[in-house]
Amino acid sequence: MNIFVINSGSSSIKYQLFKMPSTSPICVGLVERIGLDDAVIIHKIYNNGEEETLKFTLDIPDHETGLNEVNALLTNPEFGVIQDTAEITAVGHRIVHGGEFFSTTTIITPEVKEELKKTFQLAPLHNPSGYRGIEVAEKIFTNATQVAVFDTAFHQTMPPQAYRFALPNSYYTDYNIRSYGFHGTSHKYVSEQANDYLGKSDTKLISIHLGNGCSITAIKDGQSIDTSMGFGPLSGLIMGTRTGDIDPTIVFYLVNTLGYDVEQVSNLLNKRSGMFGLTGYSDMRDITKAINEGDENAKLAYDMYAYRIKKFIGSYAAALNGIDAIIFTAGVGENDTLTRKLVCENLEYLGITIDNEANSTRKSGIREINLPDAKVKVLIIPTNEELEIANQCYTLLL
Amino acid sequence: MNIFVINSGSSSIKYQLFKMPSTSPICVGLVERIGLDDAVIIHKIYNNGEEETLKFTLDIPDHETGLNEVNALLTNPEFGVIQDTAEITAVGHRIVHGGEFFSTTTIITPEVKEELKKTFQLAPLHNPSGYRGIEVAEKIFTNATQVAVFDTAFHQTMPPQAYRFALPNSYYTDYNIRSYGFHGTSHKYVSEQANDYLGKSDTKLISIHLGNGCSITAIKDGQSIDTSMGFGPLSGLIMGTRTGDIDPTIVFYLVNTLGYDVEQVSNLLNKRSGMFGLTGYSDMRDITKAINEGDENAKLAYDMYAYRIKKFIGSYAAALNGIDAIIFTAGVGENDTLTRKLVCENLEYLGITIDNEANSTRKSGIREINLPDAKVKVLIIPTNEELEIANQCYTLLL
Repeated sequence: MNIFVINSGSSSIKYQLFKMPSTSPICVGLVERIGLDDAVIIHKIYNNGEEETLKFTLDIPDHETGLNEVNALLTNPEFGVIQDTAEITAVGHRIVHGGEFFSTTTIITPEVKEELKKTFQLAPLHNPSGYRGIEVAEKIFTNATQVAVFDTAFHQTMPPQAYRFALPNSYYTDYNIRSYGFHGTSHKYVSEQANDYLGKSDTKLISIHLGNGCSITAIKDGQSIDTSMGFGPLSGLIMGTRTGDIDPTIVFYLVNTLGYDVEQVSNLLNKRSGMFGLTGYSDMRDITKAINEGDENAKLAYDMYAYRIKKFIGSYAAALNGIDAIIFTAGVGENDTLTRKLVCENLEYLGITIDNEANSTRKSGIREINLPDAKVKVLIIPTNEELEIANQCYTLLL
Repeated sequence: MNIFVINSGSSSIKYQLFKMPSTSPICVGLVERIGLDDAVIIHKIYNNGEEETLKFTLDIPDHETGLNEVNALLTNPEFGVIQDTAEITAVGHRIVHGGEFFSTTTIITPEVKEELKKTFQLAPLHNPSGYRGIEVAEKIFTNATQVAVFDTAFHQTMPPQAYRFALPNSYYTDYNIRSYGFHGTSHKYVSEQANDYLGKSDTKLISIHLGNGCSITAIKDGQSIDTSMGFGPLSGLIMGTRTGDIDPTIVFYLVNTLGYDVEQVSNLLNKRSGMFGLTGYSDMRDITKAINEGDENAKLAYDMYAYRIKKFIGSYAAALNGIDAIIFTAGVGENDTLTRKLVCENLEYLGITIDNEANSTRKSGIREINLPDAKVKVLIIPTNEELEIANQCYTLLL
């Protein structure tokens, strides 16, 4: 069964094609700069361990043109990976926000599309693009079942004391203001990998997704019970350019005392803050380099980044009343030795102790970096959101 | 040594007179509705275990008139507690915000007053009133040393990774935007009481102040290392009418999508939210009553209130890498059995287990409500901010 996974952004389409069941794609690509001059398609084909990368610069005025070009690449007589578009059984769409209506992976019907439109105001930057991806894919992959996989769905198991804010009730009932959480596909994937690794499913896990965006989730018996991103993707951990949690009084102060408008504040908190605001860099490798050169701001930023994660681990250890394992995943989580060291040190009280050599040794696959006698397993698990989307489509259609 | 403690608000003055060293005041009072018709002074005198309450309704156009009236009561030939104003050695002023300049109790000089003025923009609702209290007291208690005791001072020991936000550095260096913390006088008082009770000072404590405002502080070896209130008194725990922590994206949503202005949002989050917003009541006794009558919103509000505290306990257990004791204090903390029960249940992993009977039994003084073999002491310690202010003045002047 061929499953095509799409992540449709405002001016881009990312895609992967899987022959299921499988753990790796047969091709991966990206259409960039849709609607701008010199749009680009980067298309990688994997064949018997060989990797071939093709790059095309062409005129792509809209998503439909872009996806048609991709379809032409997939079925190209010379280097295509399938012979006919009809060989694609399902298209799995990554949709950022499912609101409260979508708590699971869902086959797209006209009714589902109507419900999806209602989520636009909750994720105005992301969901309209995802919706456009669906409409375009329906035109091109006419034989395929269209499936929506939501970044929020995994967190729909949170209990109300975790997802509600202390606003008057009407803000929840009338305007759907609550915590939704994001990165659900990643948290679900790595927590299932962890359960497989631990050989049991009645587990208490804390999954720490550290990429450009960062979030942390408390997972009990396979279900999300709390997560650090809330109504939008700003709150919780410190991120590349986002503040994470911040006292809202600061928003009022910036407006009332410093004369900002709300748009400027939103820009500041989302795009100019976080590690970038503290150090001038948003890539942790640059910041580590700066630390090694004696940059005090870079050192403080790392300490803040790790301290925030450490406190969330404690917080979720309390919510779960225990921890079997914590999981580091995504770009920074999988690759940044210093972050993991700073987060895990001085947590003996919670049963967390790591082996510094194991933490510093790069290996592929799942890695266990706790000390052998540690009460809590500390795991590094590579995330794979596209594979998780393909798996969910496959399971749904089996 | 007579020490007079003043808490000067925008239209009120609260006061207590202590003969130091002592643990209880000889008179306590409140001037209310300053500047309005029918201002009121309630003046209580304690004499050999007897309590006498006097109430006066009179015209008090300003703070100076109010404090002059109080001085007249203190020295009244018939029921006065001192013979002459000059018998007051010091006046201790409760000042909400000391910014970064004041990290300790401070004798007021002209230079100190200039520095104090710079804090007005950090606490525009509170510090100008406190300053007015100082100016008036200087005129009336001319022989006394004027002393400022800051609600933020105790938290000035926090390390930068706890007090800094992930905003660009200039917001800290140019605008002093950082976490200050509040209720410091209370957290200091009860943590010192706890150290006395435990018979040691190298302790890891979590102090939970639950009144109309609520905050929680991690205290290591007598020093605050982190606290839940931040730049202003809105963040952290859920309070009577304040949201506590809330995703700032909600502020942007209320403005951009629902058309609020920032003042309306600030009002909503500070004055119409918290337990009041969730239940219609801000007094926990009313909410408990509603729960007993089957009100589901009241039940959820309590669960949210306790869950937030529970998560902060876990967070600070991680920050401290251990806990010797947690302390419940202030109105709700000292009196609300249900809150303490909900907070402490299912925290065995952190070493917290409470005795439900001890938790339900009212007694005066310090109470220990943990199970006898519990790793962590759970203490109820009545707070006394006025006594702490008097003690600090006394120590300073000895």
